[in-house]
Amino acid sequence: MSPIYLDYNATTPVAPAVAAAMLPYLREHFGNPSSGHVYGQRTREAVARARAQVAALIGAAPSELVFTSCATEANNLAILGVARALRGRGRHLITSAVEHPAVARPTAHLADEGWDVTVLEVDGHGRVSPSELAAALRDDTVLVSIMHANNEVGTLQPIAELARIAHDRRALFHTDAAQSVGKVPVDVGAFGVDLLTIAGHKLYAPKGVGALYVRAGTPIAPIQFGAGHEGGLRPGTENVPHLVGLGAAAVLAQQHLPTIGDRLRRQRDALHARLDSEIPELALNGDLDERLPNTLNLSFPGVSGRDLLARTPEIAASVGSACHEEGDAVSGVLGAMGVSAERAIGAVRLSLGAPTTDDEIARAADVLITAWRALAPKR
Amino acid sequence: MSPIYLDYNATTPVAPAVAAAMLPYLREHFGNPSSGHVYGQRTREAVARARAQVAALIGAAPSELVFTSCATEANNLAILGVARALRGRGRHLITSAVEHPAVARPTAHLADEGWDVTVLEVDGHGRVSPSELAAALRDDTVLVSIMHANNEVGTLQPIAELARIAHDRRALFHTDAAQSVGKVPVDVGAFGVDLLTIAGHKLYAPKGVGALYVRAGTPIAPIQFGAGHEGGLRPGTENVPHLVGLGAAAVLAQQHLPTIGDRLRRQRDALHARLDSEIPELALNGDLDERLPNTLNLSFPGVSGRDLLARTPEIAASVGSACHEEGDAVSGVLGAMGVSAERAIGAVRLSLGAPTTDDEIARAADVLITAWRALAPKR
Repeated sequence: MSPIYLDYNATTPVAPAVAAAMLPYLREHFGNPSSGHVYGQRTREAVARARAQVAALIGAAPSELVFTSCATEANNLAILGVARALRGRGRHLITSAVEHPAVARPTAHLADEGWDVTVLEVDGHGRVSPSELAAALRDDTVLVSIMHANNEVGTLQPIAELARIAHDRRALFHTDAAQSVGKVPVDVGAFGVDLLTIAGHKLYAPKGVGALYVRAGTPIAPIQFGAGHEGGLRPGTENVPHLVGLGAAAVLAQQHLPTIGDRLRRQRDALHARLDSEIPELALNGDLDERLPNTLNLSFPGVSGRDLLARTPEIAASVGSACHEEGDAVSGVLGAMGVSAERAIGAVRLSLGAPTTDDEIARAADVLITAWRALAPKR
Repeated sequence: MSPIYLDYNATTPVAPAVAAAMLPYLREHFGNPSSGHVYGQRTREAVARARAQVAALIGAAPSELVFTSCATEANNLAILGVARALRGRGRHLITSAVEHPAVARPTAHLADEGWDVTVLEVDGHGRVSPSELAAALRDDTVLVSIMHANNEVGTLQPIAELARIAHDRRALFHTDAAQSVGKVPVDVGAFGVDLLTIAGHKLYAPKGVGALYVRAGTPIAPIQFGAGHEGGLRPGTENVPHLVGLGAAAVLAQQHLPTIGDRLRRQRDALHARLDSEIPELALNGDLDERLPNTLNLSFPGVSGRDLLARTPEIAASVGSACHEEGDAVSGVLGAMGVSAERAIGAVRLSLGAPTTDDEIARAADVLITAWRALAPKR
C-alpha cells in the first residue's frame, strides 16, 4: 500500500479529468500549432482554448498569458526579462528573504552582474512588512518580486498592498504564485500585479508546464531566442498536451475554489489539533491565519523532522521544499523567520490536497504521535 | 477523413508505445523526483532510466545529458551557456546561413551584446564548406554551431569533419541535431561534438521535451537559475511524463534505425520519381545524396508552393519550416542556397515518417500532379 500522501506542496497528482483532457493530444491531435494545415489548426485552437481557461482563473486577458515549461522558467522570464528590458532605467531590485530558489537565484545572478538587490527580511510568521518595502524603494528600483504564498510554511503576503506601494514608486511588481493559484483566490486585477507566476504541477496539471501573466504593456524582453511563439516572448514548439492539461486544471480549480479552501482548512486544523493535544510544545511555523489552507508546518519538540519522517513510512511528507530535499538540514525559510536551529530541525511540512480524506488525516495523526513518542527524549 | 500527413519534419505524432509508456506517469506515479519518499523515488528512477535510454541512442554517458523543455531551449543553453562560460576567453562565434531560428536568434542576440558572429555561406545544395570554416576560425573563436540536418531541405552537414576543424583551433562545436536524431545514425563519439541538441517532437515523443548533450568537462553555464536540477544546468521540476516518453522514443528509434532509413528513402524516391515523370522542370532543393532519407523539398515550376498546397487539401505538407509558417513567402534557407526567388516560391516540403504508407505516397503524387496541372500556366 502506498503511503498517505501529505506532500501536495511538493507536487500534486494529475487530476483524472486533466489526464483525460490531455489524452487526445497525445494521440490523434498531434499537429504543430504553427502548421497551416488542419493538423496544426486543431492544436492551435486547443492552445488558444487553454490560454483562455488559464486566463479566466486569474482574471487576466488571454493575450496576457505566456506559457512556459515550468514556474521556474516563468520566474526567470519575469525577473531577467524585466531586468533586460529596463536596465536603462535603473539597476535595483527588491525581493524577500523567503523566496523559492526560482526567484532567489535569478535575482542573485543579477547581483553577480552588478545589479543592486535588496532582500527584505520577514517577521516571525514569515511576513514581509509593507513599510519596509516602502523604505527600500528607490528611484532606480525597476522590479519588486515577492511571493504570494510560501512553499514551506504557507504564509501569505499582502500582495495587493505591496504592489500598490511598489507602483507608487514606479517599480513593477512580480509575484510567484506557484503555491497559491488554485488553493486561494488569485486575481491579477485585485492584486494589481504586473507579473504573476503559475505552476502546473501544484494545480493538478502535470509537471513541465507553467505560465507567466504579463500585464498588457509591461516592458519585458525574452530570455531565450528562436521562432516567434508566445508573442515573441518564449520560443519553442508548444507543449500542446500539457497546455491542454493546464487549461483543464484551471477550469477544475475555478469550480473547486469556492469550497476546497474550507474543506482543506478543516482537515488541516483537525490534524493540527489532534497532534497538539498529544504532543506538548508542538509549534506551528508560519502565520496562523494568513496561510494557505492546506499547509501545516510543525516543529516537533526534541526530535529531528528527518528522523520522524524516516520512522513514519506510512506517510509521505517532507522537512522542507522538495526542490532542496537533499540540501541543508535546516530550512532557509525558517531561518529567515528567526526560528531557532533546534526548532527548525524538528520541522515537518504536512500539505494536504484535493484527494485528502478524513481517514488519512486520522491515520497520519496516529503514526506521527506514535513515532514522536518513540523518538522524543524521555522527561 | 484526415489529410495524408507529409509534414513529419514539422512534428511527429507520439508513437503509441511512447504514449503507453507515459500514461502511468500521468496517473499513479506522480511524485516530485526531488522528494525523499517513495513517490519521489519512483519518478526519480523513471527519469534516470529515460536519461540512460536517450544517452544510449546517441552514444553518450547518461550524465552528459541535460533534459530541457524543447530543442529551442537546448540550443539556447548550448550557445548562450557556452558564451557565458567562456566570455573571458574570446567573443567570436561561427554559425551557418541555414540554421533554424533557435540557433540563428541566440547567436544574433550575442551579436547585439557585442559578440562577433561569422555566418558561413552554403553552396547550392545547402552544404557548409569545411575549408571556409577553417578560414573563419580565429584565436578568439569560442564556439561553432552548425546544424546536422536542415529542417527544410534535409541537407546533412559533414559534422565530424567540421568538429575536427573547430577543435584544431580550440573552439567548441555544437550541432543542432533536432531533425536528424532517429532518422539517421547520430553518435556523439563518431561526430566528436561537444554539444548536440535533441528534439522530442521530431522523434515520436511529445512536443515540449528536448535534451542537450554536453560532453563531460565542457565549460557551460546555466541560462536560467533556480534549484539544482539537471546537474545545476537546468532548474525546474522535471517533466516526468515527457522524459519517460523521450526515453521510450529513443528506445524505439534505436530499434528502427537499421531499417527505417531505407524504407523512407524508397518511398520518398518513389514519390520524387513519379512527380518528376509527370512534371517537367520539377527541381529538387537540397543535396541528392547527403540528405535526410525522409525529406523531399521540390520546386514546382510556374506555380507557388502555397497555392499548390491550398489546392491539395488531401495532403498536409508545408512550404517551409512550421516555425515560421506565417512569415515571409520565401524561405531564407533556399535564399542562402542561391535558389532563385521564382523557384523558391514554387517550393514545397514533403517529409515522410514511420507511419507513411506506399498507398499514401501514390495518392499524394496523384493529387499533387493534378493540382499542378490545373495551376501551371499553359504552354
